[in-house]
Amino acid sequence: MVGGGQLARMTHEAGIPLGIRFKLLSDTLQDSAAQVVGDVVAGDYRDLATLRAFAQGCDVLTFDHEHVPTEHLRVLEADGVLVRPGAEALVHAQDKGVMRARLDALGVPSPRHRIVRDPADVAAFAAELGARADGGAADGFPLVLKTVRGGYDGKGVWVVDSADDAAVAEPFRAGVPVLAEEKVDYVRELAANVVRSPHGQAVAYPVVESRQVDGVCDTVIAPAPGLDRDLALRAEQLALRIAKELGVVGHLAVELFETRDGGVLVNELAMRPHNSGHWTQDGAITSQFANHVRAVLDLPLGDPRPRAPWTVMCNVLGGDYPDMYGAYLHCMARDPQLKIHMYGKDVKPGRKVGHVNTYGDDLDDVLERARHAAGYLRGTITE
Amino acid sequence: MVGGGQLARMTHEAGIPLGIRFKLLSDTLQDSAAQVVGDVVAGDYRDLATLRAFAQGCDVLTFDHEHVPTEHLRVLEADGVLVRPGAEALVHAQDKGVMRARLDALGVPSPRHRIVRDPADVAAFAAELGARADGGAADGFPLVLKTVRGGYDGKGVWVVDSADDAAVAEPFRAGVPVLAEEKVDYVRELAANVVRSPHGQAVAYPVVESRQVDGVCDTVIAPAPGLDRDLALRAEQLALRIAKELGVVGHLAVELFETRDGGVLVNELAMRPHNSGHWTQDGAITSQFANHVRAVLDLPLGDPRPRAPWTVMCNVLGGDYPDMYGAYLHCMARDPQLKIHMYGKDVKPGRKVGHVNTYGDDLDDVLERARHAAGYLRGTITE
Repeated sequence: MVGGGQLARMTHEAGIPLGIRFKLLSDTLQDSAAQVVGDVVAGDYRDLATLRAFAQGCDVLTFDHEHVPTEHLRVLEADGVLVRPGAEALVHAQDKGVMRARLDALGVPSPRHRIVRDPADVAAFAAELGARADGGAADGFPLVLKTVRGGYDGKGVWVVDSADDAAVAEPFRAGVPVLAEEKVDYVRELAANVVRSPHGQAVAYPVVESRQVDGVCDTVIAPAPGLDRDLALRAEQLALRIAKELGVVGHLAVELFETRDGGVLVNELAMRPHNSGHWTQDGAITSQFANHVRAVLDLPLGDPRPRAPWTVMCNVLGGDYPDMYGAYLHCMARDPQLKIHMYGKDVKPGRKVGHVNTYGDDLDDVLERARHAAGYLRGTITE
Repeated sequence: MVGGGQLARMTHEAGIPLGIRFKLLSDTLQDSAAQVVGDVVAGDYRDLATLRAFAQGCDVLTFDHEHVPTEHLRVLEADGVLVRPGAEALVHAQDKGVMRARLDALGVPSPRHRIVRDPADVAAFAAELGARADGGAADGFPLVLKTVRGGYDGKGVWVVDSADDAAVAEPFRAGVPVLAEEKVDYVRELAANVVRSPHGQAVAYPVVESRQVDGVCDTVIAPAPGLDRDLALRAEQLALRIAKELGVVGHLAVELFETRDGGVLVNELAMRPHNSGHWTQDGAITSQFANHVRAVLDLPLGDPRPRAPWTVMCNVLGGDYPDMYGAYLHCMARDPQLKIHMYGKDVKPGRKVGHVNTYGDDLDDVLERARHAAGYLRGTITE
């Protein structure tokens, strides 16, 4: 696996019972996954020679993140390395422009969008959106600008409220392509997680509700409460169809907006285990990490169904205090059913350092327990 | 952790979400746990200097097996190393003579037993058993001889049917102390698993039924089917009491015989995660491995309750074919709910190379699925 973050850490954990020998390419030997994996190479995933040397002796190469240059992946594939997901699929999770164009071609519902090169393009796009708007934002603003490559967790995303805002928008300073999108007035965010194997076998996890705070995933509720059953089925089928059409191997997370007219729009794609699937570790028969491993090795996939009526995941973000140990003890003592997942990272304010899962029959209780633990660990709840 | 077997492998797996940095002393770098742990020292656990060097920088030392010499543990404790369980507790899992004497002093019900030095001692003990027997085995035979130290999985145990048998019994050849025990005519074998922390917090898992084949654990059913509720409670309380009286820190497995008069006798003690607790990985809220880690680090313990009405564990033993890969694929494809746990060991006939867990509402179904998978992986079932 390329990338030493928490996704690799948890993928290794899930591979142990499957008997998998896990090899890691990590930036440093101190990274989250590097602390717990036996066979670690420290190196730069942007360097082709490093990737080629690492791939030697791997049965299959997969990823903790989307940042390995697409051209390097193509070279590795030409070398005969089994890259899963392959470059042709992964590029859709790396490049939002490529993703939008492909989803348009497939007729997949997305927010209205355009690749823009400069503020004048943004103004023209906004005018078109405004002309089509039925009341409200008749000038087309606010709209969203995203760097086509490299964003995550709210990074690389800007909301601009006017043509004046757009005129000084940060992403244009770097001269990189930018994707402009309408700012969707959604009901809530959902995520449809599926896993697909080279065999073409695929499984769908229940559609979840994902709540963001400041652009970072805060809470995931599985399944999404009160979600219309037909809409849930359509979202699952949409994700399965995208996985198939794009040739995804492994885990695919489809981030969705639930719209006020009872539909969904695709927001983002991720082709790796995803924060919206962390609940599966304790809440599903087979976790997203185990199924990702099974898929990339072309093993039969495991049952994705939930084990409890409700599972809630809350991210643990770093707070003002670097030492979480006292809070960690408190949370375990307060709730013996709590499932804590720590990433071995130094605590920095706002940094994802872990998550907690809770499950049970009563959503209010399950939600309260997860929120309390995450808040207590961060230091925003002190009782 | 000292010892690189599957128990260490699965303890590391359980420590990852807790954020634990795991260090391993393993015989070789190819051992089961050494394949998946980052920080591994290859060395001999019987060598005091090796143990002392390994313990440097460990917050706490715990064990995958009982074979570290007690006197070395005492030296480490005198050095200031936190050894958990400590030597004073662990000796009861290392030395069956010490264990029997202590349990007798505590009034814990055990099979009748005596330390014997030679065949004449065995004959005298058998005569006493015979004199007290109410019919049946009036000569006191058959009885069981066990080496006081070093046995496991049926190794170090002999059943002798007569004084003539005893006269040529293998354990006397080595001149080591031998424990003679009556051969209990039990209904079935049970196991009571508990975990205790230095704080004195303790949790009890449901009492399970353990079925042995040729002295090796074959199937564990959780909870033990049809077990009288009062007897289950008494068995749990007995295990908790033993853990407290012996000062156990970590996991304690108490292997029991269920007797025909509705009681239990203590067969063996193990102070580490135990085969009779493997079902907890998929069947309990908190696994025995996670609770062992929590206990030895004096973290609050996790909820031991089951997540499903029935969980069954079957060991996967090596069969005649060294390559299990085809069977592994078949089992995953046949039962997407199957939980496979492989140890990364080379397949040898009769060797424990993994286990499977199944769970659900219908015991017959759960049992059939686990047995089928274990049999198919071994090669004794081919359809």
